[in-house]
Amino acid sequence: MHTLRKPYLIFLGDVTLKSDAKTGFGLRDWCPTDVIGQWALPQATVSLGLPVIAPADAARRGAGSIVVGVAPPGGRLPEAWIPTLADALHAGLDVVSGMHTRLERYPQLVEAARERQARLINVRHADRDWPVGTGLRRSGRRVLTVGTDCALGKKYTALAITRALTARGMKATFRATGQTGILIAGQGVAIDAVVADFIAGVAETLSPANDADHWDVVEGQGALFHPAYAGVTLGLLHGSQPDAIVLCHDPSRQTIEDHPHIALPALDEAIRRYLEAGRLTNPDIRCVGVAINSSSLSLPEWARYRDQLQAELQLPVCDPMRGGVESIVQAMGA
Amino acid sequence: MHTLRKPYLIFLGDVTLKSDAKTGFGLRDWCPTDVIGQWALPQATVSLGLPVIAPADAARRGAGSIVVGVAPPGGRLPEAWIPTLADALHAGLDVVSGMHTRLERYPQLVEAARERQARLINVRHADRDWPVGTGLRRSGRRVLTVGTDCALGKKYTALAITRALTARGMKATFRATGQTGILIAGQGVAIDAVVADFIAGVAETLSPANDADHWDVVEGQGALFHPAYAGVTLGLLHGSQPDAIVLCHDPSRQTIEDHPHIALPALDEAIRRYLEAGRLTNPDIRCVGVAINSSSLSLPEWARYRDQLQAELQLPVCDPMRGGVESIVQAMGA
Repeated sequence: MHTLRKPYLIFLGDVTLKSDAKTGFGLRDWCPTDVIGQWALPQATVSLGLPVIAPADAARRGAGSIVVGVAPPGGRLPEAWIPTLADALHAGLDVVSGMHTRLERYPQLVEAARERQARLINVRHADRDWPVGTGLRRSGRRVLTVGTDCALGKKYTALAITRALTARGMKATFRATGQTGILIAGQGVAIDAVVADFIAGVAETLSPANDADHWDVVEGQGALFHPAYAGVTLGLLHGSQPDAIVLCHDPSRQTIEDHPHIALPALDEAIRRYLEAGRLTNPDIRCVGVAINSSSLSLPEWARYRDQLQAELQLPVCDPMRGGVESIVQAMGA
Repeated sequence: MHTLRKPYLIFLGDVTLKSDAKTGFGLRDWCPTDVIGQWALPQATVSLGLPVIAPADAARRGAGSIVVGVAPPGGRLPEAWIPTLADALHAGLDVVSGMHTRLERYPQLVEAARERQARLINVRHADRDWPVGTGLRRSGRRVLTVGTDCALGKKYTALAITRALTARGMKATFRATGQTGILIAGQGVAIDAVVADFIAGVAETLSPANDADHWDVVEGQGALFHPAYAGVTLGLLHGSQPDAIVLCHDPSRQTIEDHPHIALPALDEAIRRYLEAGRLTNPDIRCVGVAINSSSLSLPEWARYRDQLQAELQLPVCDPMRGGVESIVQAMGA
């Protein structure tokens, strides 16, 4: 499990496209108090609107890590970025990356990290020996976000639920299973990067036994209906043994993203299948609501869609971006 | 994907327990024409009853690999075994191991392999870049063995079906997904050792497009009802997109092995769940029979159990060890 040193300095490289800085914006929005500032090369034209702080200054002000907050072209660090990251290591910061390419590929970074005993952290990788799943019940309560597909709001919904629980004074912890989530939470495991035998075991490790009134809010991955990733989804569901699931859905999709030959399931069928599978490790599992990514709908369309779906499923339906997740948190009995 | 050089010389180390030589016996029984002989240290007391041939002689007679045919104590090669394996490498044989511990851990073997350009092959590992699953249909026919639990005959049943198809003059290939299966087939992937994101993609790679009348017989892994391994099972099911499944079951088990808190599903429910999940990538999937590991039953008990189950499920029921799999192969329409 990765545990990151906060607060962060966000590095933007020479970014010129806002969409390439998605990670940086996500960190700014979701853990603002953990972000001390931003730093970029002179060529960069995108800003997060944060204080501009050089790595050495950031280290002096207490920063723990410099985080690569942009997707580099081709998934590899351009040569021009390396000296800045090496400087940060020399200043004592860890370098944290969500890229597929490991930071250890860059000899200058390895050398600088060694000299200063700073760390190179690849949050997309999950190097460690993991236990296999046991299926044994643990104390504490758990909610898992699940989906009709990938990339439609499972992380966002989990973060919103965690915030809403905390705002009520409840004990709640967001449990990250993907790289952006790990950066936000400061810890977690990229569960799709572990060896297949250990998916459920990793999920068990990620949300350990806890106080009876504590909620782990587990970030879902993939979908049971995805031809590539359903195995990850099922292992995460079994290992998380959730008391509650929240189904995430984007009504503009008819088929699995990038797989136009595979239709999305109906929502009631999707819920039935998740509950059926989840009962293996938690017979009391129930669905507490549906989180819709309604960005394709106008406000009146969304209101109509929501009311209709609520009546149909007899469950709270909300869009975390439009009105929050209060009704779901209420249904959790929190 | 591992591709091994046959024929094999089987190395038995200093084995004194027959059960420790399971891999050696499996190879002798399932691919006798691929096994040239056996070799052991003087302390060994277990024999496969094969010709005793020294590694250098085996190489001269055309052997391609020496296979570690015993489970070493503690999962690590004892020091005393290393010189023999190094000799085999010097003679030009590859060394093949199904252990968790990689052969590269032993410097003497690495050195010997390098000198002679022989290979160290760890069939339990699956090092390679794999594609993610596509869910696209491929030509050819596929049958997958699935189970109510782990370790109850999925490999054995798949091998028996492959044999029966071949005996009928059909085109059929056994597709190995675990280490013993890989040793028998001479190729395959240990699917539980791949990174979780790629389970389905590996399964697609393992049974590529083929002639319309060719059967791939895919060795199943785990069980949808297993709290640790269901993710592997689901990804293998999706990627294999089987036209037919055969459910394997051991009637002496009431609960998942080593997980007494998790009950086995009823057989009709297990079949329903596998078909429901498999329809994602093959809407025409059907169950063609049930393979029972009846070793806990007397012959009359087995006959009674079989007849009752056949009537109940309206499917062929057989034990590959007691009477073969003809009725299942018939139901496949082969």
